[in-house]
Amino acid sequence: MLEQIDLTRKMDKEEYRRKMDEMTPHLARLQRECKELGIPVMIVFEGFGAAGKGVQIGKLISALDPRGFHVHAINGESPEEQMRPFLWRFWIKTPAKGRIAIFDRSWYRRVLVDRFDGLTSDQELSYAYEEINSFERQLTDDGYVIIKLFLCIDKKEQKKRFHKLMESKSSAWRVSEGDLKRNKEYNRYKEMNEEMLQKTDSDYAPWTIVEATQREFATVKIYSAVIRCLEAKIQQVRNRKEDTGRPGAGTESQWTDESTLKTSSLNSVDLTLSYTKEEYKEKLDRLQNRIQELHGELYRRRIPVILGFEGWDAGGKGGAIKRLTAKMDPRGYQVNPTASPNDLERAHHYLWRFWNNVPKKGHIAIFDRTWYGRVMVERIEGFCTTEEWQRAYREMNDMEANWVHSGAIVRKFWLQIDKDEQERRFRERMENPDKQWKITDEDWRNREKWDQYEQAVDEMLVRTSTTYAPWIIVEGNSKYYARIKVLQSVVDAIEERLKEDKSKD
Amino acid sequence: MLEQIDLTRKMDKEEYRRKMDEMTPHLARLQRECKELGIPVMIVFEGFGAAGKGVQIGKLISALDPRGFHVHAINGESPEEQMRPFLWRFWIKTPAKGRIAIFDRSWYRRVLVDRFDGLTSDQELSYAYEEINSFERQLTDDGYVIIKLFLCIDKKEQKKRFHKLMESKSSAWRVSEGDLKRNKEYNRYKEMNEEMLQKTDSDYAPWTIVEATQREFATVKIYSAVIRCLEAKIQQVRNRKEDTGRPGAGTESQWTDESTLKTSSLNSVDLTLSYTKEEYKEKLDRLQNRIQELHGELYRRRIPVILGFEGWDAGGKGGAIKRLTAKMDPRGYQVNPTASPNDLERAHHYLWRFWNNVPKKGHIAIFDRTWYGRVMVERIEGFCTTEEWQRAYREMNDMEANWVHSGAIVRKFWLQIDKDEQERRFRERMENPDKQWKITDEDWRNREKWDQYEQAVDEMLVRTSTTYAPWIIVEGNSKYYARIKVLQSVVDAIEERLKEDKSKD
Repeated sequence: MLEQIDLTRKMDKEEYRRKMDEMTPHLARLQRECKELGIPVMIVFEGFGAAGKGVQIGKLISALDPRGFHVHAINGESPEEQMRPFLWRFWIKTPAKGRIAIFDRSWYRRVLVDRFDGLTSDQELSYAYEEINSFERQLTDDGYVIIKLFLCIDKKEQKKRFHKLMESKSSAWRVSEGDLKRNKEYNRYKEMNEEMLQKTDSDYAPWTIVEATQREFATVKIYSAVIRCLEAKIQQVRNRKEDTGRPGAGTESQWTDESTLKTSSLNSVDLTLSYTKEEYKEKLDRLQNRIQELHGELYRRRIPVILGFEGWDAGGKGGAIKRLTAKMDPRGYQVNPTASPNDLERAHHYLWRFWNNVPKKGHIAIFDRTWYGRVMVERIEGFCTTEEWQRAYREMNDMEANWVHSGAIVRKFWLQIDKDEQERRFRERMENPDKQWKITDEDWRNREKWDQYEQAVDEMLVRTSTTYAPWIIVEGNSKYYARIKVLQSVVDAIEERLKEDKSKD
Repeated sequence: MLEQIDLTRKMDKEEYRRKMDEMTPHLARLQRECKELGIPVMIVFEGFGAAGKGVQIGKLISALDPRGFHVHAINGESPEEQMRPFLWRFWIKTPAKGRIAIFDRSWYRRVLVDRFDGLTSDQELSYAYEEINSFERQLTDDGYVIIKLFLCIDKKEQKKRFHKLMESKSSAWRVSEGDLKRNKEYNRYKEMNEEMLQKTDSDYAPWTIVEATQREFATVKIYSAVIRCLEAKIQQVRNRKEDTGRPGAGTESQWTDESTLKTSSLNSVDLTLSYTKEEYKEKLDRLQNRIQELHGELYRRRIPVILGFEGWDAGGKGGAIKRLTAKMDPRGYQVNPTASPNDLERAHHYLWRFWNNVPKKGHIAIFDRTWYGRVMVERIEGFCTTEEWQRAYREMNDMEANWVHSGAIVRKFWLQIDKDEQERRFRERMENPDKQWKITDEDWRNREKWDQYEQAVDEMLVRTSTTYAPWIIVEGNSKYYARIKVLQSVVDAIEERLKEDKSKD
């Protein structure tokens, strides 16, 4: 979940003040409503050292009635706490109905700092994940709202902040040996955080990643996340009280402008990247030959490969797949185009048709559009309920994990183009008799929903880019560049895996 | 879940025929309703070899329209199947809406037979449990009904059946080398089954244990389970269509007479067991001294102990606890009486107050009535919803697992008396001025619901007796016998644990 995020996100002071002026009294109102409705709320702050957890908690509580919340700073276990199961100190801190408990670090400590420090054994680690998920599930099943915020800064920024703190005697104590060690071994610690995010991002208690390089941006993002979660819960409880059927978690709030707060690095993608025709031809030739060789090696070693392609309409998926498969042995791969489900498919679970096309060991399956339709077109067009698409992130991550456990290489490509480039390509298709079939009214209609799709894609990339099955964002304005990047990424993935496998021979 | 079951259960032929005559056409009706409503159904048969899976599947489908179901016999993986993730062959066999898929063995093969045969590695085993639970959750979230039946016979019965099969040439082929090996190592294989049941018994796809020693009893129990699950789902779907709010999974069916089909061995408990006063005094003295010694040892080794007491009103909980603690150091134990929750407790999760009383390492916590109130009094009096008490089995198992992971010994005692003995004790209390405070109108009211309680207790004992935190059923008609059994069980549990710990020193 930390792979595709853009840590350069900023917000200008003017906009910040305007938003805060609106959101602050609104948050206070929501707190009062939660109190009236008896909704217990837990807000968890996790993230890298010096990412600003303390400052942000201060900002958050400034909007709240102090009689209604309690801030818990979670440090190492006290002797009393060491004498009991690790969740004990959190169970006893669960808030009563209508109250808010804010955690500066939390039960995640056990799988993060304590793990890094070698205090958590492997056995304890695996129990801890089970126990954490069960803890959060039990509470949310009982009507609790759990809002989990992960504040992220990069290694350089963290180092800068530590140094600044250490310059002054009055703040130097805030930087511990452990902090410096985790900065030095930032990547190792980041991997632990990534694993934690993947294992505990659930539909009942999802994580919100907060880009914390700029304080103002982070504050607005935190306010928005808290407001969105509380509004959804309040609406759900009210609906239930009025007995009007299903919860309305899917409604968009006027208070949370998702488009400014997007997490993924999609918008900062450099779409000017390109190759000349000569560069392209030379690289293409080399990579296609290499894939041909690797394909044989995969077959000998019985390694299955699953490649998913998604992207904007006219983003160049078809062309990229064509170049990818050009020199593959046709007996060893299959391209599965994904259209709207047919009647038989609709009579099954939405993942059933993709399971049907899982490749044999040693074979390559390419999906032209994928299971991710669930969280894009189905979400936006209302073909599934809010609960269904929210649950789908976990379901798709689980499915891909199944495949990886059974030995598969899984990669997902997002072909990114900008809106102007799409229009140019649409017009070109309309004017070219050979390409007219590729463009329909629906494409133009989808284009009108660009912003909605962008928001859905953003959430998809963040929630489903895992270490075992990452998304690869392909800069697609130059078709040459895009095709080469796809081929190169596939070659890299296979070579990496073969290297691992050979090291075990 | 296999510990507390009574494999001697039988049904006479007369009753069997009467029940089957009613249930057979009713099941056929339910199949038609499922078809109309588009409900997909999966029925899983697992259990010990020669427990009669094949015969029972035959009995079950005799009631069904053959156009609407498909039986899948799941043997070892074919070469095609070996080439794909292990769930692939089950995903592609998931039924379409309105159809029934019946599995003779299933995805559980991987954690049972294949594990026993050494085909499943430790790594694969831990993934397999995650993947199985995720598979079942995804399907049930999507509206599937998954009915899981576990057919149980004991080692001796199994051996007898194998021998009978082997006597005739026409059936000898049905007994494999593997079958004989699993009979020989029955206990090792049973442990794998027990672990499987514990890890996969969920609120969304619970197991039904079928005592399969007598064919007729098993058939009726299977029919009842299938009917109950289908009825609950049909009602849920209908309610949702009519938009009348929450599903009605809790309604009792006229078709399933739970009292005759109870699983636990509660009713076959031998309540005539007793001690003379002299025997009692001698044993009591010895055990109390032993507990005193062990208490010190627990303290030195920092082992916490959690003991829960449940039982019929006037079952003798108080007396047993008094004898148990008589010679314990009062600084090292605490008795927590559990009454109706107070306002503060009601404002929290129902498990919160028990978490608050988790003992420190080296201390003993005794609960006089426990968290199990959720699935007894709260279930029966309607203080929580059906969903809530159904979910509670898993929540309580998880909570106890947390405690055990952190090093605790956990034991739960059920003090069993019969209805006559209860009446005798109630009357005695009413007549004795010193004991009158112990008896209230509520006790008499609860007594009227004896049958309902018995059914709830039965389900509780089966679903929550785990290897790590077993229930101990205490024959309670003789107070002397009961007290000694409690003390002896506590001594045994502690000694067993100390032996383990010392072997690691």
